[in-house]
Amino acid sequence: MNNFELYNPVKIIFGKDSIGSLPSLLQNHEKILFAFGGGSIKENGIYDQIKTALIHKDVYEFSGIEANPEYDTLMKAVELCRKCKIDFILAVGGGSVIDGCKFIANAVKFKKSDPWNILMGEQSDNALPLGCVLTLPATGSEMNPFSVISRRSMQQKKDFSSVHSYPVFSILDPSVTFSLPERQVINGIIDPFVHVTEQYLTYKVNSPLQDRQSEAILNTLIEEGPKALNNPKDYDVRANLMWCASNALNGVIGKGVPQDWATHQIGHMLTALYNLDHAQTLAIILPALLKHEFEFKKEKLVSYGKRVFNLDYSSDNKIASSAIDKTEKFFRSLGAKTRLSEYKISKKDLPDIAKKVMEVSKGNKLGENKRIGEDEILGILEIAWTAYD
Amino acid sequence: MNNFELYNPVKIIFGKDSIGSLPSLLQNHEKILFAFGGGSIKENGIYDQIKTALIHKDVYEFSGIEANPEYDTLMKAVELCRKCKIDFILAVGGGSVIDGCKFIANAVKFKKSDPWNILMGEQSDNALPLGCVLTLPATGSEMNPFSVISRRSMQQKKDFSSVHSYPVFSILDPSVTFSLPERQVINGIIDPFVHVTEQYLTYKVNSPLQDRQSEAILNTLIEEGPKALNNPKDYDVRANLMWCASNALNGVIGKGVPQDWATHQIGHMLTALYNLDHAQTLAIILPALLKHEFEFKKEKLVSYGKRVFNLDYSSDNKIASSAIDKTEKFFRSLGAKTRLSEYKISKKDLPDIAKKVMEVSKGNKLGENKRIGEDEILGILEIAWTAYD
Repeated sequence: MNNFELYNPVKIIFGKDSIGSLPSLLQNHEKILFAFGGGSIKENGIYDQIKTALIHKDVYEFSGIEANPEYDTLMKAVELCRKCKIDFILAVGGGSVIDGCKFIANAVKFKKSDPWNILMGEQSDNALPLGCVLTLPATGSEMNPFSVISRRSMQQKKDFSSVHSYPVFSILDPSVTFSLPERQVINGIIDPFVHVTEQYLTYKVNSPLQDRQSEAILNTLIEEGPKALNNPKDYDVRANLMWCASNALNGVIGKGVPQDWATHQIGHMLTALYNLDHAQTLAIILPALLKHEFEFKKEKLVSYGKRVFNLDYSSDNKIASSAIDKTEKFFRSLGAKTRLSEYKISKKDLPDIAKKVMEVSKGNKLGENKRIGEDEILGILEIAWTAYD
Repeated sequence: MNNFELYNPVKIIFGKDSIGSLPSLLQNHEKILFAFGGGSIKENGIYDQIKTALIHKDVYEFSGIEANPEYDTLMKAVELCRKCKIDFILAVGGGSVIDGCKFIANAVKFKKSDPWNILMGEQSDNALPLGCVLTLPATGSEMNPFSVISRRSMQQKKDFSSVHSYPVFSILDPSVTFSLPERQVINGIIDPFVHVTEQYLTYKVNSPLQDRQSEAILNTLIEEGPKALNNPKDYDVRANLMWCASNALNGVIGKGVPQDWATHQIGHMLTALYNLDHAQTLAIILPALLKHEFEFKKEKLVSYGKRVFNLDYSSDNKIASSAIDKTEKFFRSLGAKTRLSEYKISKKDLPDIAKKVMEVSKGNKLGENKRIGEDEILGILEIAWTAYD
């Protein structure tokens, strides 16, 4: 096992009617930025619940944080926070709203230079406190310090992390997810699934607990995911998926083990260039990457095949390759596309995509072995482009 | 799944040479209480490592915190802390030292009445900050707010929990456990095992992720435990066991599910009366309790049998009862005794033990169903007393 540090001070309030905890959680704050995305929270009743809970506070609404939150939008919120002396940010939404609010919280206090520099690698010294009401479980942002921000004018999608970005609290009420559109439910299964594989399908370092903790999440997503699509109002199913998503990226399963994240880095570029949903890009890239990196990941793929898909062929190669096929079949069974060609992306674009991924990574090769460069990315994209049979 | 709150701000620094982090972790503190137990840390080199790391600090040593830490001993440390204006407590040891230091940390700041009242249920308002260097993985105390304190003059063993009791940091270097006596290694496998079963072998509430997270720990303990006894200097094995122990009682697996803890409550009394090691009591009581509560726990015992012991009989009853037998066999295979009679405790004592457990619980029945009263405890003790065949 590798050495590691683990720190996660987020307070999770999980369950039915947990939004009712808001007034006591906010008792030491007065000027609240109530930040959200589009109008869905007005349709499903959450907006009204929040307004009721904040009735004795000085509330400033900021709506319009888009999927893949946009730097220019967020900078307007930064200006509002500074002008109105906001002392707490309440993010109500999914990963995009929470990621956006993490950036706002850090940028408000970042005065030494242009806040864009936070996304270029400069560390922030401080941030406004942030609380979350999660409405779309997928990214795990409610229980980690990570944030991904887009700047469309520069065709950029950048991530940052700061110890000041941990939400003070996150409220997770599974029943608020009953009304999610099917596409979001599918994304909310695939995104945590690939968060786990990024931390699990690497190479062995003798970490049986972390391996099993990863398999626990994968098995639960495979078991519960289809139920959520078939029976959207089953509370326990929604609760299980919601808790899987937080556990997939709250830091625990990735401690002491190698991590990959190449699927995410390639996927981010597909979102930046073609506006695909984050999880849609992962469903395309993961199976192709596993095929391309087969020899380097084979040992873990065999464990994965045995313990997640119950495969018991005598040949390890067959178990490992079947595990990849089963992964893609699982994504497709949910209704996700898994090939670039299905999104009408031209094969001629692939070299340019590979080049741009390497530009964003500043030439640093990707993956747990740091062996995925421009040629390898192109190889992965070519596999991902072929027709599914 | 049940509603829950989860909060755990302990910073874990895990791995080889992690004691080297001490100076930076303590940079904002000057007057340090360096608290430990007996002389073992002087023999295995840890004492010297700590002294070197604290060379620029004002260090007050307090040794002699015993197994099942004694209230009267701890109160001497409280006095020392107050007199010398200690601003940080560094606990170096296992669960007893850490539990003891949690009490010291709270009691120093508890001035409204006799600190014994903290153990009688009064909430403390504050505590000195506490850091840990774990030398004996077992109780999980390094990553939770729980503490168990004994007061031998009153034949009492009481627990308390406070939000102020979370260690600020805990340093876990698996290599410091190479020199542990075999009995401690065995205890360090059984204690986390039973921490998990207390949160897992109850009744089903549709919580597949938590169930699998529990099974992940149990399977890893079963796999790695014997290796630690056979090859005490295998770093990865020690690392896996150490991380299992923290994960068994850091709050995660018990969130959203019923919890039992009757085995612990009965076991505490056996320690108070007969001075058995904590884990020794658990190895005796758990199998007997599972037999006595068979019908109420059967559904979970079946899952446990299938997924932890790979049992595949056609009869659920046979899977469940075999799972109990396998549990006891596992404890015995490590070298633990599993019957009261093996410790020469007289059968005539059993009614008195049962009565005393109920006195400590103030008449509240035990277990996840609150159905274990004096008669049931006696029944469990009688099963636990019979000879093992």
